[in-house]
Amino acid sequence: MHAFRKAIEARDLDAAEALLAENVVFTSPVAFKPYAGKAITAAILRGVSRVFEDFRYVRELSGADGRDHALVFTAKVDEREIDGCDFIHLDEDGLIDEFTVMVRPLSGAQALSAAMGAQFEEITKEAQARLG
Amino acid sequence: MHAFRKAIEARDLDAAEALLAENVVFTSPVAFKPYAGKAITAAILRGVSRVFEDFRYVRELSGADGRDHALVFTAKVDEREIDGCDFIHLDEDGLIDEFTVMVRPLSGAQALSAAMGAQFEEITKEAQARLG
Repeated sequence: MHAFRKAIEARDLDAAEALLAENVVFTSPVAFKPYAGKAITAAILRGVSRVFEDFRYVRELSGADGRDHALVFTAKVDEREIDGCDFIHLDEDGLIDEFTVMVRPLSGAQALSAAMGAQFEEITKEAQARLG
Repeated sequence: MHAFRKAIEARDLDAAEALLAENVVFTSPVAFKPYAGKAITAAILRGVSRVFEDFRYVRELSGADGRDHALVFTAKVDEREIDGCDFIHLDEDGLIDEFTVMVRPLSGAQALSAAMGAQFEEITKEAQARLG
C-alpha cells in the first residue's frame, strides 16, 4: 500500500502533505488548468477532505516502474455517490510530483465542482498561509 | 500491454469486442447507472470510437493479482481535451467482466455526455442487432 493511501486512511493530512514534492502539479477532476506547487495542492487536499463523505480507497494499481500509482476510491459529495481515482507519480526522491484526480459520474463531478467552489476562499487562505 | 489496448491501438473493434465477457458490466464516466451485457457494451465502445478524436493510451497500471488494469488515455471530444482512464477487470477466463471509464475535466465530461447523447439511437440499434 502506498504511503499516501496509508496517510489518508489514518486521516493524517500532515503526513499526506509531507509526501508532496515542492513542485507538485495538481490536476483537478473538474478544472481544466492544473495547479502548481505544494502550498495550493495541500490546501486543495484539505478542501477535498472537507467535502467528501464516506471516503474509502477500494483498489490500488501500479505502473511497471513503480513510479505511477492509481488509488481508486468511492465517496459521497452532497448525497451524490462518486467513484474516483487518485493518479500519483513519484519523483526520484519518492515524493509525489504529479497528482491527477478523475471522478464519475457527471452528476458526481458537478456536485464536487459546486462543493469545491464553496471552499474556494478557505483554500486560497490556506495556500497563502503556507506560502507565508 | 493488455490485449484490449493492443486491439484499440490497432483500431480493431472486433478484436476488442472479443475480449468482453458475455456478462460484462460497463460503468460510464457520465451516467450513474451501469449497463449490463456484451451487446450494449460493444455498441457503446463503437459509439465512443466515433466521438473521440486523437485518442491515445499514455500509461498502463495493473493490480497486484493481474486481474485489474488501468489504461490512461488522452483524447479530444468536440475540440475539448480530455484525460481519461479505462479500468478493466478480468474474469477467470481472462475476459473483461467489469469496464469502468472516468474522464476529466468537467468540461470534457460534459462534451462527452452531449456527444454520446447524439449517438444514442445508433448505439441502441447496434446493441439490438447484436442481440438478434
